[in-house]
Amino acid sequence: MQIVVTSPHAEGHTPENLPLDRPVALVMGTEFSGASDFMMSHADAFVEIPMHGFAESFNISVAAGILMQRLRTRLEQSELAWKLHPDEHALLNAEWVFKSVRNAKGILARHGLTPPPTLAALS
Amino acid sequence: MQIVVTSPHAEGHTPENLPLDRPVALVMGTEFSGASDFMMSHADAFVEIPMHGFAESFNISVAAGILMQRLRTRLEQSELAWKLHPDEHALLNAEWVFKSVRNAKGILARHGLTPPPTLAALS
Repeated sequence: MQIVVTSPHAEGHTPENLPLDRPVALVMGTEFSGASDFMMSHADAFVEIPMHGFAESFNISVAAGILMQRLRTRLEQSELAWKLHPDEHALLNAEWVFKSVRNAKGILARHGLTPPPTLAALS
Repeated sequence: MQIVVTSPHAEGHTPENLPLDRPVALVMGTEFSGASDFMMSHADAFVEIPMHGFAESFNISVAAGILMQRLRTRLEQSELAWKLHPDEHALLNAEWVFKSVRNAKGILARHGLTPPPTLAALS
């Protein structure tokens, strides 16, 4: 696992050449003050999106979209084993559903079901 | 020049394989109803950003950011002559400055300057 902080002020990689051989935890700083000193000092690497034209910085959602889309496309085109294990994928999906539905625990209970401990801890 | 409409509902290209051998006029539809029937029927090509995960669609600024960043990077990596002529670039820059400054025409006038006709028409 590598902690990769997006920062326009640190010497870093671009979305084109950030190494992807280890899992990436992508940290987006706030738009005005960037990532905290704590995150900056704990980063394993930095990534910067090249800027062109008149804008000074990207909106954080735009920056996140550009980065994740590009990194994912690069993973798809690589030979790396980057996908979640089907069990991990199913659990993440269940977690999303569980958090998206109001009173998911109650609904499951009415059907005589109890969520697995990892999900029950979320409610 | 080719009119390229972003649409998730039309058979189209992706940001990875949209042909860039002709200049591209990129048309972004509205988030809810997409591009108009008029634009759809006049499009030379369509482009779609592959979606993954739980979201149904990208915010329009995120979609525009992803598309323009990827197309520009592809142009930079290509052998195509894609850059503006320096004169076109200077004019576009001047136009931006002219529109960004309040009463640009008046400021120029106080220095005994008149903007070129293309800029004067903007004020």
